[in-house]
Amino acid sequence: MRVFNFAAGPAMLPSPVLDQAKRELEDWQHLGMSVMELSHRSKAFMAVAKAAETDLRDLLKIPINYKVLFLQGGASLQFSAIPLNLARAGAPLAYVNTGAWSQKAIKEANRYNPVTVVADSASTNFLDVPPEAPWPLPLDTSYVHYTPNETIGGLEFPYVPLTGDVPLVADMSSTLLSRPIDVNRFGLIYAGAQKNIGPAGLTLVIVREDLLAATRPELPATMSYAAQSAEGSMLNTPPTFGWYLAGLVFQWLKSEGGLEVIGKRNNAKAQRLYEYIDGSGYYTAPVAKRGRSWMNVPFRLADPSLEATFASEAAAAGLANLEGHRSVGGMRASIYNAMPIAGVDALIEFMRDFAARYG
Amino acid sequence: MRVFNFAAGPAMLPSPVLDQAKRELEDWQHLGMSVMELSHRSKAFMAVAKAAETDLRDLLKIPINYKVLFLQGGASLQFSAIPLNLARAGAPLAYVNTGAWSQKAIKEANRYNPVTVVADSASTNFLDVPPEAPWPLPLDTSYVHYTPNETIGGLEFPYVPLTGDVPLVADMSSTLLSRPIDVNRFGLIYAGAQKNIGPAGLTLVIVREDLLAATRPELPATMSYAAQSAEGSMLNTPPTFGWYLAGLVFQWLKSEGGLEVIGKRNNAKAQRLYEYIDGSGYYTAPVAKRGRSWMNVPFRLADPSLEATFASEAAAAGLANLEGHRSVGGMRASIYNAMPIAGVDALIEFMRDFAARYG
Repeated sequence: MRVFNFAAGPAMLPSPVLDQAKRELEDWQHLGMSVMELSHRSKAFMAVAKAAETDLRDLLKIPINYKVLFLQGGASLQFSAIPLNLARAGAPLAYVNTGAWSQKAIKEANRYNPVTVVADSASTNFLDVPPEAPWPLPLDTSYVHYTPNETIGGLEFPYVPLTGDVPLVADMSSTLLSRPIDVNRFGLIYAGAQKNIGPAGLTLVIVREDLLAATRPELPATMSYAAQSAEGSMLNTPPTFGWYLAGLVFQWLKSEGGLEVIGKRNNAKAQRLYEYIDGSGYYTAPVAKRGRSWMNVPFRLADPSLEATFASEAAAAGLANLEGHRSVGGMRASIYNAMPIAGVDALIEFMRDFAARYG
Repeated sequence: MRVFNFAAGPAMLPSPVLDQAKRELEDWQHLGMSVMELSHRSKAFMAVAKAAETDLRDLLKIPINYKVLFLQGGASLQFSAIPLNLARAGAPLAYVNTGAWSQKAIKEANRYNPVTVVADSASTNFLDVPPEAPWPLPLDTSYVHYTPNETIGGLEFPYVPLTGDVPLVADMSSTLLSRPIDVNRFGLIYAGAQKNIGPAGLTLVIVREDLLAATRPELPATMSYAAQSAEGSMLNTPPTFGWYLAGLVFQWLKSEGGLEVIGKRNNAKAQRLYEYIDGSGYYTAPVAKRGRSWMNVPFRLADPSLEATFASEAAAAGLANLEGHRSVGGMRASIYNAMPIAGVDALIEFMRDFAARYG
């Protein structure tokens, strides 16, 4: 029996996607082999690859002047690839610090270029987003980087920053495909797959064409957006099985009604959970209301010594992986696209019962 | 029905591995979730990761002073990672040129350090390996890099080069696990998974501990052998499903009797096919006998205009993907570990019949 899996990533995948992957694992499209045994340059796999890109473009309404890349290495490798692809050597970079993932991106960019932190949530202990007022950018800033949703802290921007002509770069690892976005607002969007897209090992990059030009000589060839774009993300062998699974996820999202429907459902899931927590008298959600994530819901128990009991009783009730990140403790419910409303309802029911017994 | 898949990579996987992956795809170890939905830091996945490493160490008899890394990005990303991890800036690097993959490695290394080609098969049109005599190395060479098996050309070294105290680095993408090797002869071994290890998207690196020290500041954090080694290849989320599948492949190899048995079987498969080709009077194998690959067997038809007919008739007979690489043409049978002897026999039978009908 499948459980409700609240892990932050690798995370729950839609059951229909896993059903289909299982059915055709050994004999895909009656070719007598698994999709993962296909040459990436075969017509059969090229059709898989193309369909996935087309469906992603449909879902996100990606304009034609943006390239879509299916890469490897995780968002963390992009922390390096972004400055090496988009910044002149020595040019200032503007970064926004809203928590653990912002900080990793900053640390890596700083290896290559001088980073200015232009907005910072540190003074709120990363429990609120920076004010929306336009941030002062250093002269000749190559780009502004921010993390629309901090997976660990559960802190999410309720707005898209205004950066004028300076390209906006967004680590959307834990928020891409959770609702409609206006891709035109961004110079580059990137995301590790293992939350809302597919299995770990696939990384999506959506980049505006005019940003492909200025790579640096120390950039490894397979990390070059221009080179990968010219080769359809097949400068070398791509993670074919992950690409195929992402394609199945995109089809599932379309069959569910697309991102308008998904976004409303995700909003409803999050609101229901936060409302219960706020009114419970036993649990608390630490993040300021305007910065609360739809995807990652951190919460605390009135008695923190009961956290391990909570997690293990929840797991026994079919609600898995509710422990918070090891760096912050507490509890966290990650409720990505694949988590049905029934999963959130089951969690609330369990929380109510737990509070009644221990509160 | 499963076919015999002669693709060069992504390639055929052992049927028992796919059977098991299929059985447990939606509910792994009765946890109510897929292995690809597990957190990489969960106890359950850490056990998968550890078992895979232990089995690989057993199979290859990897000494304890070598680290094993499960990475992303393919062998092509290692073309950059190797100089950035192992070479001082400006130090000379020695490379051996035996074909297409050597040349890609050379081109990428040259981006970072001056490369000297110390042995070259170009004068044989890449149909023979360089002489075994010790190659003259530039003073202070950081390492010697070679490609034990050229997947496209089907050219394989019958010997391990002697490089004295200079570390030997080997791209074993298409030969690792095909037979026993003496890991002590190497400073670093790397391999993309999609031939003998698992699905595309996983990359193995086996590196001697004393080579972990000298990284350069421009090295992206996730590409650092030292940093990944310190974090058990989990500096960021690894390709968990590929890691799991590789573990199943390692278990399968052990259940088959280990690399001694596998090596004998692979040798028998290759000898049987080359012997048939040499005696056929219709097909020719272009590579010099001492340099013939056990894994990738290129061959030509007496009438090259029949190549497309050969490939399509073979495919119709359940012998898939026999076309040579688009850069060289001709035919190529890749016969990795997962290809049973019955597959080679079926190919020979088809070739005999084809030659009788068209020869």
